[in-house]
Amino acid sequence: MPEKVLVFSRFPKSLMQRIGEKFDLLDAGGKPPNEMFSADQLAGIRAMITAGGSPLPGRMMDMLPKLGAIVCYGTGYDGVDLKAAAERRVAVGHSPGANAASVADIAVTLMLAATRRLLVLDTYVRGGDWAAAKPSPMMRPQAGMPGRKVGVYGMGEIGRKIAARVAAFEAEVGYFSRSRRDVPYQYYPSLEALAAWCSVLMIAVRAGDDTHHVVNADILKRLGEDGYVINIARGSVIDQKALVEALESKTIAGAGLDVYAREPHAPDALTALPNVVLTPHTGGHTQESHRNMQDCVLANLTAFFQGKPLAYPVN
Amino acid sequence: MPEKVLVFSRFPKSLMQRIGEKFDLLDAGGKPPNEMFSADQLAGIRAMITAGGSPLPGRMMDMLPKLGAIVCYGTGYDGVDLKAAAERRVAVGHSPGANAASVADIAVTLMLAATRRLLVLDTYVRGGDWAAAKPSPMMRPQAGMPGRKVGVYGMGEIGRKIAARVAAFEAEVGYFSRSRRDVPYQYYPSLEALAAWCSVLMIAVRAGDDTHHVVNADILKRLGEDGYVINIARGSVIDQKALVEALESKTIAGAGLDVYAREPHAPDALTALPNVVLTPHTGGHTQESHRNMQDCVLANLTAFFQGKPLAYPVN
Repeated sequence: MPEKVLVFSRFPKSLMQRIGEKFDLLDAGGKPPNEMFSADQLAGIRAMITAGGSPLPGRMMDMLPKLGAIVCYGTGYDGVDLKAAAERRVAVGHSPGANAASVADIAVTLMLAATRRLLVLDTYVRGGDWAAAKPSPMMRPQAGMPGRKVGVYGMGEIGRKIAARVAAFEAEVGYFSRSRRDVPYQYYPSLEALAAWCSVLMIAVRAGDDTHHVVNADILKRLGEDGYVINIARGSVIDQKALVEALESKTIAGAGLDVYAREPHAPDALTALPNVVLTPHTGGHTQESHRNMQDCVLANLTAFFQGKPLAYPVN
Repeated sequence: MPEKVLVFSRFPKSLMQRIGEKFDLLDAGGKPPNEMFSADQLAGIRAMITAGGSPLPGRMMDMLPKLGAIVCYGTGYDGVDLKAAAERRVAVGHSPGANAASVADIAVTLMLAATRRLLVLDTYVRGGDWAAAKPSPMMRPQAGMPGRKVGVYGMGEIGRKIAARVAAFEAEVGYFSRSRRDVPYQYYPSLEALAAWCSVLMIAVRAGDDTHHVVNADILKRLGEDGYVINIARGSVIDQKALVEALESKTIAGAGLDVYAREPHAPDALTALPNVVLTPHTGGHTQESHRNMQDCVLANLTAFFQGKPLAYPVN
């Protein structure tokens, strides 16, 4: 008989299909498990799957008295209370790097779309303004990629892949991360120094208490009038109110965002702006990326139920 | 006194500003010159600036009896009747490679936006469907870039820059051009072979009689259901009617277009489609690119009026 696994966050059913072939999934669909299942049903569950960004405090873990493993679908695990898990001797696993290429690709897509004003251009064609030769101030030529100074904040797997892609566009790449890494890009010793140097800031840092709202009004101002910020990490890294103000006041030129402070909500102040490109946290949303993440989930669950250490544990 | 130069095509005034500091520009604004200026005014004009794609037949050249040089703003010169120019001993110049990086960048922007369905995603966020968790068939995960087979048709300066950028996304790159080139990509001996192999076809070939409608229904069908075509060259290279049919029937998955059969018109059948990304022939539309093109125009005009061969002649 397949082992029972609770699906804690809300996932499209198609993403759980392969995992459901190996395990008996109880889908809580993003609700507290005790609202969806009886105490009896929950009593037998030893493992759960969660989206790393979903808040998962100790009191949720306590609804599953036999819980031994939390497996994050994806790279992030910032929603999981790691201290609470450790206190309960619950192992936490994730999918390191599984979606790195896919996320790096959406970062570059957002950068190119924002700096070339792709949405404005598409609307100009579709709405008939091009055929009517209607002038548009948004159509003024912008600085292109060659020679652009692009700063990558965070040099993990995603940051490296972003940097490699950006370098191919003949741009200059610099980076800041907690420590200097063995990469062929200029290191800046602080986020302030990186932001003062670059005109495009790519946020690829792991979210946590130490990175909460670190991209604030001061950092944004350093990017300058031709500056762009691209965030594919977590909404918590940017002070979203300061970002809206910087965009509205043209302190910076634009932004490309895949993540937001309160998902799935992008505030009206953001969605009203023409100089932003917005995607619904779909950085890792490609076929290969999902397959890689499912492989990691399956490997973590299989190891756990065989009594072995998780295949991809969170350190 | 500065030399007189006719501006034949319709250009935004800002693009002619630097050239206007050195030469006395007579702006025909896209109209036949004899509708805008008297025969007397035209009699003294020895050089003209044109957009390479604008039709420039011998009868237009004959309106300027002293014409000695046609200078194209940009790389293309497909609109210029070269035979008519040669018969009249009129030199033709252009701006080779001046906009190559900028055009390659828009090609990659269109590829990423089309394959990741960027416009659909942005609308999903802005329209509130994300917050409402509304299902969308357009949101299904697509194949990403790693391992994608990308075919580049044409391996001039723009084709090379496209290939270098695409390779950085961990995609496989193949190409077809009239002859094998010294580049690190797989050569395919025909457009048919390239289209059968790849799932994204990037059109970067020079327009001309030999490339008119070469991307036809058969070529598009070879790309397959997950196929995309990206065109930043000239609208004439694609059979636009066949493209619309392939997109409507889902014979291919999508397209990214910067150029069209009849500019500035994108047909309603194209603008109604959700699986295309459309830009208004702005491939070369960045600050550096315009500066480079203006440098070439200035160099061509200066050489001509000094009685020297054009600095950047069309071969």
